[in-house]
Amino acid sequence: MSDPGEFARILAENERYTESFDRSALTAAPLAGLAIVACMDARLDVGEALGMRIGDAHVIRNAGGIATDDVIRSLIVSEHLLGTDQIILIGHTGCGLLGADEMAIRAQLAASTGVDLDIPLLSFDDLEASIRASVERLRKHPWLKVDKIHGLVFDVATGRLHQVT
Amino acid sequence: MSDPGEFARILAENERYTESFDRSALTAAPLAGLAIVACMDARLDVGEALGMRIGDAHVIRNAGGIATDDVIRSLIVSEHLLGTDQIILIGHTGCGLLGADEMAIRAQLAASTGVDLDIPLLSFDDLEASIRASVERLRKHPWLKVDKIHGLVFDVATGRLHQVT
Repeated sequence: MSDPGEFARILAENERYTESFDRSALTAAPLAGLAIVACMDARLDVGEALGMRIGDAHVIRNAGGIATDDVIRSLIVSEHLLGTDQIILIGHTGCGLLGADEMAIRAQLAASTGVDLDIPLLSFDDLEASIRASVERLRKHPWLKVDKIHGLVFDVATGRLHQVT
Repeated sequence: MSDPGEFARILAENERYTESFDRSALTAAPLAGLAIVACMDARLDVGEALGMRIGDAHVIRNAGGIATDDVIRSLIVSEHLLGTDQIILIGHTGCGLLGADEMAIRAQLAASTGVDLDIPLLSFDDLEASIRASVERLRKHPWLKVDKIHGLVFDVATGRLHQVT
């Protein structure tokens, strides 16, 4: 549950942030030529976990860290407009979509909102298989020419990345 | 352009990261009840710019910070599976999609790859209008019940957030 003053606090934190901000020399093209695709999970700080600094990498995140159409759109922009040539895709242990009973959740949403929608939540039953499938989709996409694509698991208990593919 | 040793360096950086990692008490539910939607831009460190700490917020990012179907899927998971009740959506100055000649880019991709695909890149001509349209889409979505939704611009030259809606 968010605090009622949370938004005001964020604006105040940002005001403080601007006082030491000095990245005006950076351009839109990531310095490390890297695009990272990861789950939205709050426990994963992509920059810290991968030793990235500001300006190094595009960061694309969604529920599950899954290579959806929108992730592919973003990667096309990343590679062809902004010159990235390496992709790292990251799933993680303890993901809310792992083993979720998707049909039950959707039925409950339809009942509680009174609106029945066909929105797949993309739950999955095998974390490493999900990562492999996403990486495979990226490797095969005709508009993604980048040949360095890795898939990793982030362990939320230890912070460790484990290479899957 | 990424360095050939970049991936090995990342794994080494992560090994060092695990040595001081101690977030094993955190769960999947974000502590601040917050979901952040932002552009993938490398110059935007969402955590730093908003004064967020690890575990505070879901972070959903794509090219443009646009409320696509996949962002809505992620926000449904965020709200209904993991209890967030506030959304902050962030676009930024100097976005690669701002004013991009989308049809020319797609024609060039079709020519260089030999495969013609209908993949809208979602370029836009007015940053604030784009943010307002995205926020409006979220506010109207029947499966998103969260009533606190703000739209902000991040200035890549100063680090400052500016509220649009």
